[in-house]
Amino acid sequence: MSGNSFGTLFCVTSFGESHGPALGGVVDGCPPGLELSEADLQRDLDRRKPGTSRHVTQRRESDRVEILSGVYQGCTTGTPIGFIVRNEDPRSKDYAAIADKFRPGHADYTYLQKYGRRDPRGGGRASARETLVRVAAGAIAKKWLAERFGVRVRGYLAQLGPRRIAFRDWAEVDANPFFAPDAAVVAELEAFLDELRKSGDSCGARVNVVAQRVPVGWGEPVYGRLDADIAAAMMSINAVKGVEIGAGFAAVEQKGSEHGDEMTPQGFLSNYAGGILGGISTGQDVLVSIALKPTSSIRIARRTIDASGQATTIETEGRHDPCVGIRATPIAEAMLACVLMDHALRHRAQCGDVTPPVAPLS
Amino acid sequence: MSGNSFGTLFCVTSFGESHGPALGGVVDGCPPGLELSEADLQRDLDRRKPGTSRHVTQRRESDRVEILSGVYQGCTTGTPIGFIVRNEDPRSKDYAAIADKFRPGHADYTYLQKYGRRDPRGGGRASARETLVRVAAGAIAKKWLAERFGVRVRGYLAQLGPRRIAFRDWAEVDANPFFAPDAAVVAELEAFLDELRKSGDSCGARVNVVAQRVPVGWGEPVYGRLDADIAAAMMSINAVKGVEIGAGFAAVEQKGSEHGDEMTPQGFLSNYAGGILGGISTGQDVLVSIALKPTSSIRIARRTIDASGQATTIETEGRHDPCVGIRATPIAEAMLACVLMDHALRHRAQCGDVTPPVAPLS
Amino acid sequence: MSGNSFGTLFCVTSFGESHGPALGGVVDGCPPGLELSEADLQRDLDRRKPGTSRHVTQRRESDRVEILSGVYQGCTTGTPIGFIVRNEDPRSKDYAAIADKFRPGHADYTYLQKYGRRDPRGGGRASARETLVRVAAGAIAKKWLAERFGVRVRGYLAQLGPRRIAFRDWAEVDANPFFAPDAAVVAELEAFLDELRKSGDSCGARVNVVAQRVPVGWGEPVYGRLDADIAAAMMSINAVKGVEIGAGFAAVEQKGSEHGDEMTPQGFLSNYAGGILGGISTGQDVLVSIALKPTSSIRIARRTIDASGQATTIETEGRHDPCVGIRATPIAEAMLACVLMDHALRHRAQCGDVTPPVAPLS
Amino acid sequence: MSGNSFGTLFCVTSFGESHGPALGGVVDGCPPGLELSEADLQRDLDRRKPGTSRHVTQRRESDRVEILSGVYQGCTTGTPIGFIVRNEDPRSKDYAAIADKFRPGHADYTYLQKYGRRDPRGGGRASARETLVRVAAGAIAKKWLAERFGVRVRGYLAQLGPRRIAFRDWAEVDANPFFAPDAAVVAELEAFLDELRKSGDSCGARVNVVAQRVPVGWGEPVYGRLDADIAAAMMSINAVKGVEIGAGFAAVEQKGSEHGDEMTPQGFLSNYAGGILGGISTGQDVLVSIALKPTSSIRIARRTIDASGQATTIETEGRHDPCVGIRATPIAEAMLACVLMDHALRHRAQCGDVTPPVAPLS
Repeated sequence: MSGNSFGTLFCVTSFGESHGPALGGVVDGCPPGLELSEADLQRDLDRRKPGTSRHVTQRRESDRVEILSGVYQGCTTGTPIGFIVRNEDPRSKDYAAIADKFRPGHADYTYLQKYGRRDPRGGGRASARETLVRVAAGAIAKKWLAERFGVRVRGYLAQLGPRRIAFRDWAEVDANPFFAPDAAVVAELEAFLDELRKSGDSCGARVNVVAQRVPVGWGEPVYGRLDADIAAAMMSINAVKGVEIGAGFAAVEQKGSEHGDEMTPQGFLSNYAGGILGGISTGQDVLVSIALKPTSSIRIARRTIDASGQATTIETEGRHDPCVGIRATPIAEAMLACVLMDHALRHRAQCGDVTPPVAPLS
Repeated sequence: MSGNSFGTLFCVTSFGESHGPALGGVVDGCPPGLELSEADLQRDLDRRKPGTSRHVTQRRESDRVEILSGVYQGCTTGTPIGFIVRNEDPRSKDYAAIADKFRPGHADYTYLQKYGRRDPRGGGRASARETLVRVAAGAIAKKWLAERFGVRVRGYLAQLGPRRIAFRDWAEVDANPFFAPDAAVVAELEAFLDELRKSGDSCGARVNVVAQRVPVGWGEPVYGRLDADIAAAMMSINAVKGVEIGAGFAAVEQKGSEHGDEMTPQGFLSNYAGGILGGISTGQDVLVSIALKPTSSIRIARRTIDASGQATTIETEGRHDPCVGIRATPIAEAMLACVLMDHALRHRAQCGDVTPPVAPLS
Repeated sequence: MSGNSFGTLFCVTSFGESHGPALGGVVDGCPPGLELSEADLQRDLDRRKPGTSRHVTQRRESDRVEILSGVYQGCTTGTPIGFIVRNEDPRSKDYAAIADKFRPGHADYTYLQKYGRRDPRGGGRASARETLVRVAAGAIAKKWLAERFGVRVRGYLAQLGPRRIAFRDWAEVDANPFFAPDAAVVAELEAFLDELRKSGDSCGARVNVVAQRVPVGWGEPVYGRLDADIAAAMMSINAVKGVEIGAGFAAVEQKGSEHGDEMTPQGFLSNYAGGILGGISTGQDVLVSIALKPTSSIRIARRTIDASGQATTIETEGRHDPCVGIRATPIAEAMLACVLMDHALRHRAQCGDVTPPVAPLS
Repeated sequence: MSGNSFGTLFCVTSFGESHGPALGGVVDGCPPGLELSEADLQRDLDRRKPGTSRHVTQRRESDRVEILSGVYQGCTTGTPIGFIVRNEDPRSKDYAAIADKFRPGHADYTYLQKYGRRDPRGGGRASARETLVRVAAGAIAKKWLAERFGVRVRGYLAQLGPRRIAFRDWAEVDANPFFAPDAAVVAELEAFLDELRKSGDSCGARVNVVAQRVPVGWGEPVYGRLDADIAAAMMSINAVKGVEIGAGFAAVEQKGSEHGDEMTPQGFLSNYAGGILGGISTGQDVLVSIALKPTSSIRIARRTIDASGQATTIETEGRHDPCVGIRATPIAEAMLACVLMDHALRHRAQCGDVTPPVAPLS
């Protein structure tokens, strides 16, 4: 398994750079017989795409996906689904000024040192544009999970910089450009971001993702645990620095008599586990939360070195998201969906003959 | 890759149950020529083993490891290193009372529902005893990393329940049964735990792990990122509910002008990145922090269901750690070491001919 | 996936040297609920073990297997099945004479050059003793395949040196020490081997393996094809230099009008395909044939070099099989069974919801 | 690892159908700094492409490859190399007549039964057009192997139907449409094929591939052996039914005193091993031979069943190769090159610090 693929049975392979001809992916292992068209992928790609509000990068990309294989007469055939998205609006000359310097907090430095060379245009492979591959793959997983098991995977912005956003209503999430679950906070977020952009700075964010109706039994102890694979999937998203399942870091301060979710014939009485025990889904909602760091491409001058190792300063002009967390919700949903689908298939492989001995709780 | 193996090139496979004849593992991919004996593994196994203080389970296990292959005349040969540890002090009858009930917060329920059956003795495969395999494998990785690159991997207890423990001195970590980095807090931790044990309850913990002198360039974007693999490795440890790299969740409230670590010819000026940018090591210390939930086996009565789905209550007697975080430090170190070694080998494979163009910072 | 593991979902990991403390393996991914005991593994281990006739190595090993995990109350639990076999009769001093020379046709030279060192005792990891791990794993696969699908995997000796052996009767295969399917040839084979042993030389062999009642649909085009995985599995057996499926090399001289197996509602009219088309099982018998080279440890003096690169000669005394093909039948069966079980699980994962549209032929 | 990827570190993922919009692939793990352009891939694609003589399919495809990522300023960057080839000349209506029948010897039947549906146009995913992905990937591997190690991978047609072709001269291989290594046989082959085409039938072939200057030490015992991976790679090529390394099936009739290649300080005295011992390269030429079955799409009427299971007959019109072996030489070369490159990287990962103790022979 190479570094640009993930998943054991539902396997996603990604390629492409920010300013190259195209980005694309291959989804292998999808069961046959799933109705699928480009429109199914486009919906989530459009949720992620740049330029949809003044609060995100103004790069103009239609992000139109073309499916190249694996679908025949409107259904998946079981063969690999290849797809590409052409880059339409690169402005590579914007990067000339920073091509031989390293942005603090950016992968500029590590790519160059690892590979001995790098494509500096738009961040090359380290660009958040790569996440469109995940979103396209995740749309396939979401559709299959929904049709086959009724699973629903959704996310929302839970915090923007210092501003925590309480969950209010799923219906509001797609009704504002932040994926905020509460319409009442939108004006405040807009004001905060307008101020931030003006200052030339950026901020971090927290995104929560929830998978509902996941059956009991998905996940492979002890290293292929469902939560371990979710953690890897989330941490692989650009800018993510932390992952929590259920109570997460709050569990440190809980007592066992508080954290352990009691069970009754009517169901669990709480969900501090976040729907996973021993690496295996419990049947409750799977609850994941991630921390995204602030964007490293900012207009404020910062100390750095150049390609010859000399001290210099850098200010990054060009089109950048002031908060990568704003567009991260569909990406995080996609990663969770891919992991769940992979484990649905893995579980069916090993335990396809098992009937859960106890009537499943939720 | 099955669920009980991890690592692409430095590959660890684990087997064994808490009350079966033995636990063991196979470490494949270790370079030849590393001096290795059972004593090298035993050192860390002894740091992890039960019964070393009154604050951990009183199960009496020598945890003596036997190497069965892969070492000849005191050196690794490049062939797989198989090893086992016999279980010596199971008391399976202790579990008869809870064999047909589910502990809230424990994997009892999910294992049974997934597999249709389970070994209830000592938690079976879900027991923290499995972590000895990781510790043994990690000892090999630590030794190779130290000899080949000077890398040093160390951890400490950063929080016990509500009590945060500031880092003071590495020398103190192994001088107390908690792996606390500050001798001044030990008496307080002991009092807290004595009280906790008396109450029949348990608590959570936070453990920090640090890898020093990791060279720039380890990690494979975009899914095989160093931080993604660390996140999976940590989340695969029993009871872990959260993982942070560097600033972790604190990054949510940081500005870009604060979070991005400035660079000078003398080195980085901060380390909010935790030594990883774009999934690739920067040359700074790799900083990882994990949250461990409170033990689910407690003496306080809790509501649950039994194997026929009926409501009941459960109190867990027997020998259990009141805080699994106490013994987690060597386990977390081991997982970090294994991931780093795997990536050292992966990096050498692809980039063995690359010289970093810029004099590496740290 | 490291070099000592194989299988995607039914995953076998092997360790151990010929003269080390033990050999063993880990079988991960076995479905739960399979009745399994050491006796199930022992049966095939006894078919493979040395010393059962004067025609094989006289090393005295009971090859008694101990299962260490993954089985509870006589059934598999879904957790990894670890097992070991202790080495009881090494005579390491036999190897002193050849420890610093290379046997022509043996892995002595390549192991040393690859790893910089090697364990010369009994061939170390390159010994055919390693195949007992395969046989143990294969016994599990055979049992599950038989119980779940009625699949039966059997092999026989098809040629010993120049002597081709026509298939006559499965009942005869286990009634002679050669796994010959025709009792009438046994005396001749014995005479041939007695002569060969006297001469100090060795010979090659061909073994055929057949899997009956394999359902249509197993195998994953285009690289994870059933035949590709079988080819790898067979070629990984010590001494194998060729693999054929169905007509094999005879297909070179066939016309398309002869080779393509015609189909009628009553079934296929021939089986030149060997039960696999496009990498997927057809429902016919899976037919595999392998070529084993003659043993390289012979008493006849041969030119070679020593560890300092100087010319010398070598004669190998000690206990060796004059034809490794004699004991290869259970090994080849085991490898085929493991591959089939892996693909049974993989097929169920992706296509568990598919009903073959046409009534399956056989 | 899913079914449409192969390789552990040099990892090739393939997608596409014969009559879909495009075929393509992703090559992950290529070292950075390799000069690479589309022309490097095109050379071998042109050797494989259809319509180059009257003896192969007359489908008109330019097979022009477009590289979409992983190359910057004419060099690989270490990120995945995505590429596509558009299908230009499908004639899908040619397949209407056979869309609901199964060609004897073709994957029509198994794809439908496995997946419950299939794309019948041009054989869908089972088409030999998929092999262009292998050829493109192999061109990268060949280039890197040549530049980094001086390795040269070449193949030739060794037998066409009943006609064996002795090796004469590498220079002649690319000078005729059969990749025959002897110009003297070309007229005879042409006459044979003209006759064959006229009869509406097809024939099999044997192709030999040789890799020169492979260093000693590549290959991972015991399952990741170099020969095992070669066997899988070759058997995964459409129509291949047999694989041999070195002496192959001839080893069955050899004595040990004949087969074991003697060694002198000047080198090996023969190469029955085919350059591999114990799964590890010896430093001699790696010798591989494969058997390709006759094409199943023939104009001669054959008995078969239709999609409702009823008896019928089938004659396949349309554009087909009368012998897939004719175009198989570049494909087999590509697969060998990919496997060698993967093992070069794997070897460097584990044994990058080893110096072979004995001056390497060849």
